[in-house]
Amino acid sequence: MNAEIINIGDEILIGQIVNTNATRMSEILISEGIKITKISVVSDNLKDIIDSLHQVSDSTNIVLITGGLGPTKDDVTKTAVADFLECDLVYSENTFTKIEKRLKERNITIRESHREQCFMPSKVELLNNNLGTAPGMYFKKEDKIFISMPGVPYEMNDIMTHEVIPILRKNNTSKFFIDTLMLASIAESDAAAKIKDIEDNVKENTSIAYLPSLGILRIRLTTYQDVGQDLKKYHNEILIEIYNRLQKYVFAQKDVSLESVVANICIQKKLTISTAESCTGGMISERITGLAGSSEYYLGSIISYSNEAKMKLLNVQEKTLLNYGAVSEETVIEMVHGACDKLNSDVSVAISGIAGPGGGTPEKPVGTIWIAVGNKNSVKTRLINAGDDRTKNRIIGTNFALNELRKFLEQI
Amino acid sequence: MNAEIINIGDEILIGQIVNTNATRMSEILISEGIKITKISVVSDNLKDIIDSLHQVSDSTNIVLITGGLGPTKDDVTKTAVADFLECDLVYSENTFTKIEKRLKERNITIRESHREQCFMPSKVELLNNNLGTAPGMYFKKEDKIFISMPGVPYEMNDIMTHEVIPILRKNNTSKFFIDTLMLASIAESDAAAKIKDIEDNVKENTSIAYLPSLGILRIRLTTYQDVGQDLKKYHNEILIEIYNRLQKYVFAQKDVSLESVVANICIQKKLTISTAESCTGGMISERITGLAGSSEYYLGSIISYSNEAKMKLLNVQEKTLLNYGAVSEETVIEMVHGACDKLNSDVSVAISGIAGPGGGTPEKPVGTIWIAVGNKNSVKTRLINAGDDRTKNRIIGTNFALNELRKFLEQI
Repeated sequence: MNAEIINIGDEILIGQIVNTNATRMSEILISEGIKITKISVVSDNLKDIIDSLHQVSDSTNIVLITGGLGPTKDDVTKTAVADFLECDLVYSENTFTKIEKRLKERNITIRESHREQCFMPSKVELLNNNLGTAPGMYFKKEDKIFISMPGVPYEMNDIMTHEVIPILRKNNTSKFFIDTLMLASIAESDAAAKIKDIEDNVKENTSIAYLPSLGILRIRLTTYQDVGQDLKKYHNEILIEIYNRLQKYVFAQKDVSLESVVANICIQKKLTISTAESCTGGMISERITGLAGSSEYYLGSIISYSNEAKMKLLNVQEKTLLNYGAVSEETVIEMVHGACDKLNSDVSVAISGIAGPGGGTPEKPVGTIWIAVGNKNSVKTRLINAGDDRTKNRIIGTNFALNELRKFLEQI
Repeated sequence: MNAEIINIGDEILIGQIVNTNATRMSEILISEGIKITKISVVSDNLKDIIDSLHQVSDSTNIVLITGGLGPTKDDVTKTAVADFLECDLVYSENTFTKIEKRLKERNITIRESHREQCFMPSKVELLNNNLGTAPGMYFKKEDKIFISMPGVPYEMNDIMTHEVIPILRKNNTSKFFIDTLMLASIAESDAAAKIKDIEDNVKENTSIAYLPSLGILRIRLTTYQDVGQDLKKYHNEILIEIYNRLQKYVFAQKDVSLESVVANICIQKKLTISTAESCTGGMISERITGLAGSSEYYLGSIISYSNEAKMKLLNVQEKTLLNYGAVSEETVIEMVHGACDKLNSDVSVAISGIAGPGGGTPEKPVGTIWIAVGNKNSVKTRLINAGDDRTKNRIIGTNFALNELRKFLEQI
């Protein structure tokens, strides 16, 4: 089954609001095995809404609409639906009774606008809204199912959960499988090359998608199953084949962050960690502490942005800085030892690099980043040549550092 | 001028990624005085992309497209564009040279897929991509401008800034004035109440928009000017009226970050700063060091996530922690002194709070955050009661801390 989403609202079009409604609706549709083929955001304008209803593709089975059901002037979705269904708006006493009850509970004065809100297209079935005054609408046209909901996220979510999912289940007969592998420290093109033959030979219903971000690569395997097919086993076999080829780079077999993998290892092995950051300026620490409960295993960080701080707070020797520079293998090794010592952690990760745009030299161009991870007994280092963009370099450095930390923690 | 946005990518359709690209593009278009009439998200499917190009409304002048320009099989935007323009894909040696240079710098193997990436529709003009391998595309059809960019957010943002905005400006003939005031530490509703009478009385062509984010409020004043009108003076008068009412909360009169205002004061007054963070876990430091050149005035941070680190690295006294707790006015004052001393900075800002979801008590519920800013001679403190969401609390804490730092730096 194919679905389209139509979100109505100028606030999304002008960039004032991120369209999280579409994301939430997609999640629900996907988990019901329904494929989303299009998301459209249209303005509060009556004509635009009517046009968008008429533009729904022939291959679409379900159309989910949000927005434009409120009590104010710019809420015209019901008028658009009546036009689309070629029917009248009729007064719904039942809806008014519900609104009246809700408003009385909240000591809100009942106004003429609330009565006006009760005029509904005659050809729709109303869906209960437990959390607001505007009911949802359910109607069919040319074998397509249409559902219209308010744009308020929690009202939409409630109607989706209690009213829409049962409708979807009653109408849906197709199925699909989806899996995500999380990789670190590998380029999209390198990963694609390693599994090119697998990708070239998968069945038509199976697809592999690469979703790269800085230092992280998601690989998503999707298999759609038609009626009468049983592709679960096939899907899993392909997944295992891909996993086996890329195992070295895989840090998780579902969509989770590097820092959450680090967290799990620390908790499981009862290890404490700390960080010593230069070029990333706190980004690694910020990522680690973004997780609730991180204080259980994370002790802190020393952000040594100046050489003086590296010496005073991390015991980096002056001669190391003079002989090798702040961005060097020697310096990050001493930073790891300093952080383990000063923060009294089992393991520490240190990073020092030239984030840019200034500070590069022919020997150490912008993007040169040294990482060290270790404890009192052993330290591993890694050199990265990132790019020439400051923000990117810091994010890449952070992801590589977290991945090196993860690998070290896994091995001890 | 009217614009439409088309975002290509299954990852948005399946709800794996929130469509922040559309939000960012809308912001840019709006600030250029261009109205967005529709946002469409379509799948990586060739036919769907071609259909979406043909479905652009007659009244649209500009179409901005993201996604599907990468090196892998599911990247088919160029094929779709060639079909739409009825032209061939031709090999661009120039593009390959750029890709080759970029990959060599990063020690990434050049593959056949990279060569394949260099086939471009013959009727497009290429737009420079400073941060990735896939160039943008610019073409016209039936008087409409089309621009296609990669879906990677920072690449899109860079191409928008350096290539697209100049194209938009060259083609946009309507006039308008737009100004932004940046405010910190005030709620949207409080700000709106203070200027309600101004807002109620502005001319039809002028509008005031409130764009709140956590701890920061943008107020945007926009005046559209029709041919024959001269509204510049009127626009400026309204701007000054708003500024005068809200001056106390305004940290900038254009859209800049708190940390860049802090940077300017430090450079101008030749002051050095440091931070001592607990609940924000490095977020303040990360924000400050996000700016190029921050090493001129920023010395570093001590992220004291454990009490031991607070004592050992920031000289917080054990009895202070025992008597008042880690989240207390007394502790953040000692953290400021410790950071100034250990990092040898002129001024330091310290923060300690209960980010949540755990750790709250009736006296100190989740969202309780103490901030102190000062130097050896004087320390100012501030208590915030944020909310119950960990991420939000950390961002609010960071913005309040940066704002308190800014105010202290301005006064010394």
